[in-house]
Amino acid sequence: MHLFHSPDLIDDLIELPEEEAHHAIAVLRLTPGMRIGLLDGRGTRAIATIELISKRHCSARIVERYEAGPERTAHIHLAVAPTKQMDRFEWFVEKAVEIGVDRITPISTERTERGKLRIDRLQRVAISAMKQSQRLWLPRIDALTEMNDLLAEPLPAQRLFGWCEGEHRSLMEAYRPNDDVLVLIGPEGDFSPEEATTLRTAGFQAISLGSARLRTETAALAACTWMSLAQQR
Amino acid sequence: MHLFHSPDLIDDLIELPEEEAHHAIAVLRLTPGMRIGLLDGRGTRAIATIELISKRHCSARIVERYEAGPERTAHIHLAVAPTKQMDRFEWFVEKAVEIGVDRITPISTERTERGKLRIDRLQRVAISAMKQSQRLWLPRIDALTEMNDLLAEPLPAQRLFGWCEGEHRSLMEAYRPNDDVLVLIGPEGDFSPEEATTLRTAGFQAISLGSARLRTETAALAACTWMSLAQQR
Repeated sequence: MHLFHSPDLIDDLIELPEEEAHHAIAVLRLTPGMRIGLLDGRGTRAIATIELISKRHCSARIVERYEAGPERTAHIHLAVAPTKQMDRFEWFVEKAVEIGVDRITPISTERTERGKLRIDRLQRVAISAMKQSQRLWLPRIDALTEMNDLLAEPLPAQRLFGWCEGEHRSLMEAYRPNDDVLVLIGPEGDFSPEEATTLRTAGFQAISLGSARLRTETAALAACTWMSLAQQR
Repeated sequence: MHLFHSPDLIDDLIELPEEEAHHAIAVLRLTPGMRIGLLDGRGTRAIATIELISKRHCSARIVERYEAGPERTAHIHLAVAPTKQMDRFEWFVEKAVEIGVDRITPISTERTERGKLRIDRLQRVAISAMKQSQRLWLPRIDALTEMNDLLAEPLPAQRLFGWCEGEHRSLMEAYRPNDDVLVLIGPEGDFSPEEATTLRTAGFQAISLGSARLRTETAALAACTWMSLAQQR
């Protein structure tokens, strides 16, 4: 059964968002009476029957709803400097959503090479990864955010940042799976020493992912994988 | 300093392999007297001075050698069914080499959709990932292998395969970081029930990576990440 993302599943008669409708009509060529699956990305999965199909619109009537609780015992929030090549960051978002993450914040830092980011594209990647992996929760993908603006938010007690110089522990030693976490991963060329000091002052602990030098998107995904799987031990 | 792969660093005067020479000459436009780094992919790193540059050839004299022991306490061997889209398998190889793996065997199974594989391309991907992550060991990348031929090889005591149906444990419970391991990851559509029986009979334990349905390349990389990081705890 084909799955579609529809943020609001409260009423029984729903209208698919434009992109999803286009996919249902022009690509899959669905017709009235067919059954589809709906995900609101907030824990609800529904089964619906297509009612009306027009050139641009597709409406469906919900016949069954299924609610699921949170996927994880503790919240996983990754803040990652976007890579120079957009496809590498999109790939990270796809894989992180498949493996399990609650929130991704692209951060701009001193050495971040990308000033703009197509968040709508990243959100599309996240939605299709959610469907692909049959998850019921859509992670939140933020707009490109200044690191200092993120630090001004209310933060979880467990705060980590990738940093291989000077004193640091490994993520594998440091991570506490039962507590919410925010992990910052810097750009190619890493955080500046000043940024590292700012982070330590803000209560962030420096962590590494072993000996090898990892690309930004690899480090971010490795951290995401370790934490998400450690919660499921 | 630019790094080049040169499988044989025994003599002091070495000739770069054709592709590496092309990169040095045509792309980086290096000239005699310049210093370069050399990796044999078997634990040796050398510093050399370029001696001669011609249209196609680049020779260098080694001035310093550094030998490193094995990167891991226990061997990690992943056997993975190639994906329909080649780029997904190439990125799995790139990321696995960055994160840490000893051997990758593409396997053909009942439901594997790809009959041919450009191993030379995968090896190039592995070499550049080794340089990128500044590793001294190049993982072995095998040709496409029938699953049953792999099972006929001498195998490590720790044998796992990805399988979410029926009785199974999670990789996180099952994996013993101090022992060599072979992990099999099936294609989209998974192993057939007959193959699963064959594997259990051959002493393989069924493992999962949590609740979500992961693409082949995502499951393979998640398993690789967990095992490689678990060894570095």
